[in-house]
Amino acid sequence: MTLHGTYDKDNIFAKMLRGEMPCVKVFEDDVALAFMDIFPQTEGHTLVIPKDVKARNFLELKPKKIGPYMERVQTVAKAVEKALEPDGIRILQFNGAPAGQTVYHLHFHILPIMEGQTGRPHASGEPADTEELKALADKIAAYL
Amino acid sequence: MTLHGTYDKDNIFAKMLRGEMPCVKVFEDDVALAFMDIFPQTEGHTLVIPKDVKARNFLELKPKKIGPYMERVQTVAKAVEKALEPDGIRILQFNGAPAGQTVYHLHFHILPIMEGQTGRPHASGEPADTEELKALADKIAAYL
Repeated sequence: MTLHGTYDKDNIFAKMLRGEMPCVKVFEDDVALAFMDIFPQTEGHTLVIPKDVKARNFLELKPKKIGPYMERVQTVAKAVEKALEPDGIRILQFNGAPAGQTVYHLHFHILPIMEGQTGRPHASGEPADTEELKALADKIAAYL
Repeated sequence: MTLHGTYDKDNIFAKMLRGEMPCVKVFEDDVALAFMDIFPQTEGHTLVIPKDVKARNFLELKPKKIGPYMERVQTVAKAVEKALEPDGIRILQFNGAPAGQTVYHLHFHILPIMEGQTGRPHASGEPADTEELKALADKIAAYL
């Protein structure tokens, strides 16, 4: 079964939370960490993950943790909107590999959409240039 | 600008909330209403909308309303999982037409995904058969 399983404390997002792996940070507080997706589907693709949880996906998040976490997702999405002024924003969350999940620590995707722009498939091809991601992260963080 | 605008109190979801338009209901309480998408992208495609808000999208939802609403999104997603036993679940929310939004009252999509199954584009082609949607809604509601 793909939808549930044991939380792997060595997944890459858990390592980022512990500072054992680098990430291009956008936002961090006691509830959540936001950073640039290294394989962006569109320019400005940002991820928001909850801290202090062992939830592989949204279905596994304890109800009392949902509000504080989702408030951070909105906070970051609003900053993405102000910083990048996209025509639209997609907020996506995948549970299980067949749904498109690739890392098993709960994360919401914030995808800025420009009119007429075609996105890239997730986690395909080459990772983005780190300096470009840092510039985007700084732009977004300026509104946080 | 597509991302923001005046809330139209006569959008179809507002009409469903007022009982002026029918919907195939899955769940309802004082915070949210869940019903079957009439143009399902996959079998079991369910929508969850907040009550008593004039939010066109997630960016416009008042922070204090986020927790109770998103807890309902999880509750319904868990019921979809138990009822339909999909291989994965996609949770999607679109802000603005270029992102895929077609109705301007905040809604989260819950999309059950079966391995190897190709979904249909949203709001294209013929609406689903109402009796089939009712059977799915009953199946999901049995876990609520």
